[in-house]
Amino acid sequence: MAEPTLNVTVIGGGLIGASWVALFLAHGHHVCVHDVAPDVADRVRAELHRIQPMMAQLGMPISPHAPTLTFEADLGRSVEKADVVQECGPERLAFKQSLWARVEAHCKADALLLSSSSGITASMQSRKMKTPQRMLVGHPFNPPHLIPLVEVVPGCKTSQTAVTRARDFYLSLGKQAVVLNKEIPGFVANRIQAAVIRESVSLVKQGVVSVEDLDVAVQSSLGLRWATGGPFLSAHLGGGAGGIRAFWRQFAGGLQLLWLHMRLRPVLLTTRTQADLADEVLKRYGGQSIDQLASLRDQQQIALLQTLQAPHTNENTLP
Amino acid sequence: MAEPTLNVTVIGGGLIGASWVALFLAHGHHVCVHDVAPDVADRVRAELHRIQPMMAQLGMPISPHAPTLTFEADLGRSVEKADVVQECGPERLAFKQSLWARVEAHCKADALLLSSSSGITASMQSRKMKTPQRMLVGHPFNPPHLIPLVEVVPGCKTSQTAVTRARDFYLSLGKQAVVLNKEIPGFVANRIQAAVIRESVSLVKQGVVSVEDLDVAVQSSLGLRWATGGPFLSAHLGGGAGGIRAFWRQFAGGLQLLWLHMRLRPVLLTTRTQADLADEVLKRYGGQSIDQLASLRDQQQIALLQTLQAPHTNENTLP
Repeated sequence: MAEPTLNVTVIGGGLIGASWVALFLAHGHHVCVHDVAPDVADRVRAELHRIQPMMAQLGMPISPHAPTLTFEADLGRSVEKADVVQECGPERLAFKQSLWARVEAHCKADALLLSSSSGITASMQSRKMKTPQRMLVGHPFNPPHLIPLVEVVPGCKTSQTAVTRARDFYLSLGKQAVVLNKEIPGFVANRIQAAVIRESVSLVKQGVVSVEDLDVAVQSSLGLRWATGGPFLSAHLGGGAGGIRAFWRQFAGGLQLLWLHMRLRPVLLTTRTQADLADEVLKRYGGQSIDQLASLRDQQQIALLQTLQAPHTNENTLP
Repeated sequence: MAEPTLNVTVIGGGLIGASWVALFLAHGHHVCVHDVAPDVADRVRAELHRIQPMMAQLGMPISPHAPTLTFEADLGRSVEKADVVQECGPERLAFKQSLWARVEAHCKADALLLSSSSGITASMQSRKMKTPQRMLVGHPFNPPHLIPLVEVVPGCKTSQTAVTRARDFYLSLGKQAVVLNKEIPGFVANRIQAAVIRESVSLVKQGVVSVEDLDVAVQSSLGLRWATGGPFLSAHLGGGAGGIRAFWRQFAGGLQLLWLHMRLRPVLLTTRTQADLADEVLKRYGGQSIDQLASLRDQQQIALLQTLQAPHTNENTLP
C-alpha cells in the first residue's frame, strides 16, 4: 500500500527528533528539521548514522544524506509547506505555547500539529493558539524508531478529525497508536512504569531483593509475559478455563489485600467493576477460545525465549 | 555438564505440578507424583501430552509415558526416596503445615523440601516441623516449564545450606533463580504485577483508555522493554550518557509528583536513596559502558520485534 508523500517538519534536533526523522525518512516523507543550534545538521546526521543499521535490520533503510532531508533555522519558513509538524522541543510550557502560536501563523491551514511531550498536555500547550483544534500530543515511547507505541492524546479543544488523522499517520508509520480519552499526567505507559519503579525501589530499600535480582525477576517473568500480551489478556489467561471472570473470583480479594500491604490505595474491585471489566475483556478477546489464546501466547513466549538465547543477541551478553 | 539424577517427588498433580513434572523429567530426574485423586495419572499424562511439543521446541524432549515417571497415592511412600520434594498442593495453611509434618516423618534426613506456594511463607508452613531448616519456598512464575523465574524464599528457620541447594537445583533446571532476603506478601514478581494491575484497572475505570488499548500500550512499550532488561537497567539506560545518576537527576522529582497524582504513597527518593541505588546499579552494570549496554538492548529489542512479527508466531494472530 503506497503511502502519500508528506512534508513533515520536525521541531528540535535532539535524540527524539532525530529518531522521528529516521522513521519519517524511511517511510518516504520529506523531512525538514528546525532547530536554532548551528550544528544541528551534523548532530542529526551523526545520530542517523548510528541508527541506520538498526533501521536496515527492521527493513527500513535510510540515508543520513537523503535529499529528502533538509534543515531550516527559521521557524516560520520550516513549517510553511508542512502537512505534519512533530514537535520535540524542550519540556517548558512557555516555550511550547509561544512556539505553537508562531507555527500556526506560518503553516498551512490544514497542517496537523503534534507534540512529542510526555508531560505537558495539548490543552495547556495550545492555550495561545487560534486553531487549537488541530494540535494534540503524539507521545512516543523512546526511541520512536524502535518502540512501537505512540500515545495519541487530544486536548480539550482538539477536533475528532485531528485525532483520526494523527492516529492514521502513526499507523501508516507502522506504529501502535493508542488514543487516550482523557489527558492525565504520565499518560498510560509512564504511569504504569512509575508504579513499577516505585515498587522496585521500595523492595530494594526494604532489603527484600538486590537491584540485580529485581531486574532478573522482572525480565524473566513479567517482561516476557507482557511482551506477548498486556495485563488484561494476562489476567484473562491467568483465570484458566474460566477466563477473566474466574481470575477475578480467584484473585480479586488477594489483590486488594496485597495493595493494602504495598501501601497502595486500593482500587475497589466491586462485583460491578469486575463485571464491567470482564465484559470489556471478553469484547476484545472473547472471539477466540482460552485454549487458542493461551496456545498463541505460549508459542510467542517460546519464540521470544529462543530469540533471547540465540547467539547473535547474546554474544555481548551481560557479565 | 551432566546433572546427577535425583529422585524428585511432586506433591499435587494439578497444572503447576504437571508443569514441574515436565521440567524434572526433561532433566533426567526420576519423578514420583503424589496426589489422592484417583485419576491423577491420566490427568498428569494428558497435561504432559499437551506440553510435550513445547518442551521439544525448547530442546527438552519428554515422554508422558517415561518409565522415570511414577505415581504414589500414599504420601509417606511417595517421599521415602526423595532427594527433593516440590509441593504444589492447595493454598491452605493447615493443609501445608500438616503435610510437611507428615513428609519429614517419612523422607530421608537430607531431603530438600520446597513449596510452590505464592502466598504462604515457609515460616508459616514449617511451624509444625521438627526440621524446618530444610524447608523453603520455590515459587515459579506460571507455567514453570516456560517462564524462567523461580523465587527462592527461605523462612526464618531455613538454613543457608538449604537456600544454596534450592538455588542450585533450580539453576540446574535452566531456571532464573532469585533469592529473596525477606519473606514479604506477593514476593517480588506478584507485587510488581499487582502494582501494574492496579494502575491498569484504575486507568480503565477512569475512562482514560480502553482495555484493548491498555493492553496494546503495555505490550508495545514496557513489555518489550522489560523483556530485555528490568526496571533498574532501563533507568540506567534512560539517563542517557550519565546513566542512573542522570536518570535520578532528571526524573526523581517528576516520579514523586506522579506517584502523588496516582495516589500512591511516595517512596522518598532522597539524595541518599538515589546515591545508594546508583551505587548498586553501577556495581551490577558499570562493567560495561552505556553505549555497549544500550546497543545490546537495541539489538535484543529488534530481535524480539522481528520474532513477534514473524509468520510462525503470528499466523494465529489476534483478530
